[in-house]
Amino acid sequence: MSVDMSPATSFDQLKRIESSKLFQGAVIAIIILSALTIGAKTYELPAFVERSLRVLDTAITVFFLAEILFRFVACPNKKRFFMDGWNVFDTIVVIGSLIPLDNSEAVLLGRLLRVFRVLRLVSVVPELRFLINSLLKAIPRMGYIALLMFIIFYIYAAMGSMFFAKVDEYLWGDVAISMLTLFRIATFEDWTDVMYDTLEVYPLSWLYYLTFIFLTAFVFLNMMIGAILEVMSEEQNAKEAKQAHDERDEIARQLRAVQEQLQELSRQVGEKRD
Amino acid sequence: MSVDMSPATSFDQLKRIESSKLFQGAVIAIIILSALTIGAKTYELPAFVERSLRVLDTAITVFFLAEILFRFVACPNKKRFFMDGWNVFDTIVVIGSLIPLDNSEAVLLGRLLRVFRVLRLVSVVPELRFLINSLLKAIPRMGYIALLMFIIFYIYAAMGSMFFAKVDEYLWGDVAISMLTLFRIATFEDWTDVMYDTLEVYPLSWLYYLTFIFLTAFVFLNMMIGAILEVMSEEQNAKEAKQAHDERDEIARQLRAVQEQLQELSRQVGEKRD
Amino acid sequence: MSVDMSPATSFDQLKRIESSKLFQGAVIAIIILSALTIGAKTYELPAFVERSLRVLDTAITVFFLAEILFRFVACPNKKRFFMDGWNVFDTIVVIGSLIPLDNSEAVLLGRLLRVFRVLRLVSVVPELRFLINSLLKAIPRMGYIALLMFIIFYIYAAMGSMFFAKVDEYLWGDVAISMLTLFRIATFEDWTDVMYDTLEVYPLSWLYYLTFIFLTAFVFLNMMIGAILEVMSEEQNAKEAKQAHDERDEIARQLRAVQEQLQELSRQVGEKRD
Amino acid sequence: MSVDMSPATSFDQLKRIESSKLFQGAVIAIIILSALTIGAKTYELPAFVERSLRVLDTAITVFFLAEILFRFVACPNKKRFFMDGWNVFDTIVVIGSLIPLDNSEAVLLGRLLRVFRVLRLVSVVPELRFLINSLLKAIPRMGYIALLMFIIFYIYAAMGSMFFAKVDEYLWGDVAISMLTLFRIATFEDWTDVMYDTLEVYPLSWLYYLTFIFLTAFVFLNMMIGAILEVMSEEQNAKEAKQAHDERDEIARQLRAVQEQLQELSRQVGEKRD
Repeated sequence: MSVDMSPATSFDQLKRIESSKLFQGAVIAIIILSALTIGAKTYELPAFVERSLRVLDTAITVFFLAEILFRFVACPNKKRFFMDGWNVFDTIVVIGSLIPLDNSEAVLLGRLLRVFRVLRLVSVVPELRFLINSLLKAIPRMGYIALLMFIIFYIYAAMGSMFFAKVDEYLWGDVAISMLTLFRIATFEDWTDVMYDTLEVYPLSWLYYLTFIFLTAFVFLNMMIGAILEVMSEEQNAKEAKQAHDERDEIARQLRAVQEQLQELSRQVGEKRD
Repeated sequence: MSVDMSPATSFDQLKRIESSKLFQGAVIAIIILSALTIGAKTYELPAFVERSLRVLDTAITVFFLAEILFRFVACPNKKRFFMDGWNVFDTIVVIGSLIPLDNSEAVLLGRLLRVFRVLRLVSVVPELRFLINSLLKAIPRMGYIALLMFIIFYIYAAMGSMFFAKVDEYLWGDVAISMLTLFRIATFEDWTDVMYDTLEVYPLSWLYYLTFIFLTAFVFLNMMIGAILEVMSEEQNAKEAKQAHDERDEIARQLRAVQEQLQELSRQVGEKRD
Repeated sequence: MSVDMSPATSFDQLKRIESSKLFQGAVIAIIILSALTIGAKTYELPAFVERSLRVLDTAITVFFLAEILFRFVACPNKKRFFMDGWNVFDTIVVIGSLIPLDNSEAVLLGRLLRVFRVLRLVSVVPELRFLINSLLKAIPRMGYIALLMFIIFYIYAAMGSMFFAKVDEYLWGDVAISMLTLFRIATFEDWTDVMYDTLEVYPLSWLYYLTFIFLTAFVFLNMMIGAILEVMSEEQNAKEAKQAHDERDEIARQLRAVQEQLQELSRQVGEKRD
Repeated sequence: MSVDMSPATSFDQLKRIESSKLFQGAVIAIIILSALTIGAKTYELPAFVERSLRVLDTAITVFFLAEILFRFVACPNKKRFFMDGWNVFDTIVVIGSLIPLDNSEAVLLGRLLRVFRVLRLVSVVPELRFLINSLLKAIPRMGYIALLMFIIFYIYAAMGSMFFAKVDEYLWGDVAISMLTLFRIATFEDWTDVMYDTLEVYPLSWLYYLTFIFLTAFVFLNMMIGAILEVMSEEQNAKEAKQAHDERDEIARQLRAVQEQLQELSRQVGEKRD
């Protein structure tokens, strides 16, 4: 009997370890340490520090590998483990870190993947996961606004490179460069310098810039803010509205009970009369 | 009898084709292709690609012409067809595309009208039409705010060109140029350079810029955001408020029924007593 | 008797003329004409146009004077006329326009006061008056936020001119100049140029700029937006909440009626039993 | 008996003086005077004014010391006095002002602490205290958003200094400098100059800037606005929702009373029948 129980018991024990505060804290500490080593590498460092950083990096990689294997083993349903997007993300980042840093070709890719290890903080801290999830939820609503924005950018970029390419090849050379220039104008970054250049050739080109700025910066940005606020106030109001609806439902239920009581009473009085 | 039915049948068939997913998808695909050719023309291209783009352009123009004629024929009420703003827009853009690109005079106008073919995407995708319609609905509310904004710009521009024209003819030459300069200041684009120039002649001119920035950028932009949010939250709250009102109505109706039952019962008891 | 009636009749007639669409339209047209002449004067004009503008200006001044006298006569309560802020504003602007433009000393003041005639459009169009009134209503709420903002600016300006005056006398010379520089930083206008200069002397001065930007631009601007939205949503929600409250009140009233009917019935049944 | 009463009476008297309008007004006046002397010191002043300012400064310091001692004595519970954050703040600022300004070492620190005396205005005016308190309340909600923001900044800064350090050592030298550069980009301050430099070496680096700007400036700033608005609208809606809930509760209570009356009536009728 003890043989039958032992895997389940050790499994429960694994589960308990995984969800313990200490284990979670250790993982968070190692992620922060990992982030610090990444930051430290951007400074000029003496050779021995560089060497210890490399040792530390290997240790962190091994820890992360062990942690993800442990979490995989502790997971009761193996299929479900990879259906959770955060687990897939963690696995990719950890496996990516296995690329050795010595190979001169892949060194930059390896270092880049190590940077994304900082993002594991998001997958470990539940509040940050919640924030990201609520951000992702807002994307579909903003999708069509983004498409409309893209159409406006594309039309203005096509017009811009049609007319202004000869004024400034560097800013309006083709439709892609023009879109980058228009994004710059949408952020108000030195947009008047761009305008004053074209005003000399096309004195009416201020119309192009003003209509573009009004269309993008003012109207659409506001719509985006609106869409986000809508989501937020919706979730908040929904709870209140639900409670109010339930209370009104309860009142209506009580009223039906009153009516039934009255019918019963009326029947009693009627019987009595007979 | 079959002769009578046939036009209606073929008409229904046209209607069915027009609203089919396949037809809609084909139109969207052609519009995107049209947008890509417009974008492609802004790059330096080898001669044979230029030639094939011209052939493609003619093909797209013919397709759009055929599509709009088809939609017109498939429309049961011909008058109503032109009362829909989106149809009018489509027709103008398509007819505009008939201007030949070979004529050197009209070539730029023709290319410009081809750019607006991208906007047909808005008229074809219902979600984008909905977005534009809700934007247009917000315009009347913002109309008076825009008028007030214009008055403020005009007054400051008149003052600006009155005092600062001698400081910098290029920025404050006349009331129109001054309004452009003020728009630049309202977007915070290098506004201090403009101010530091006039500060040397008029040491108190910072008052002019600060009051202008406070009036426009802060107060009025916020009012515009407010107006937009108001529209959005109004539509959203209205539904909830309607539901709550209906539920309260139902409760009041039930109460009246209870009162009637009581009156009936009271009458029964009274009769019994007699 | 006809003598007694005549002043009242002519008074009613004046009142009717004043509130007629035609009269209102004429006043608006003259204000716009006045605005156009002000704008026209900022351009280089041939001598005869200048002369006709001067004649037109006199005509407009006379018209405005006549209009305000007419409105004063048409007002039933003379005291109340000057208790309306808009009337006082109109009177001051019109009287200010009487300053002759030939006198070289007062010419600039006279022209300046003529600019403010454009603002009369706000006092004449009711929708613009409503907008301004709702803006003025929001000021008390924003008053303390503005005071807090001023305190923050003052403290940072005092610190700024204490430390950075020796770095750049032109930007941090005294507390007033520093406040202007800080306002520039709050609008993000070339703030990094200011920072990079002081970073060379005080390597930790980025803390000064970042805390200032976070305090002002982020937190407080948002609070202002919040204050404005609060006013707006309050007015809108209040109506709905009032309706819901009234409907619930009606339900409670009906319930009390039901209880009274029941007591009456209970009394009847009790009497019957005896 | 009069001896027993006297301390309590004098204590009440102190309390009354402390909360009197005159005393409050005097404190506010002295704080403003203190702020003005701090501002005045940033100007070049004749020697005798400097001397009188130093005398005034001593007088203000003495007044503040007396005032805080007075408030401490007037406080019925001495422990509680230091549990109020505002009192602690006041005490630190006042004690800090005791550092003599003659010592050349501590002169800058002393002047800096005198600047913070202006902040005492916040602790004295109740409306400003309320504003600050409501700001502090919003911080926990924004904490995780700030953490997420910091992670994004850190990742982009690590990538930035990894790739762009060789392009511009001054902007991307190490992870700390890169974060400052990214903050500059987030405020749109000359961000295109930074981008155009790196575009020459990495033609795809626009992706880095655009994704960063979208992630930070657009999405997260909006979330912060949302968080603030949520707090505000919550407080406002809560009152309304509470009232509606109470009214519905009252209705449900009345209904239960009706049901009890009906049961009683039914019992009466039943008894009668027997």
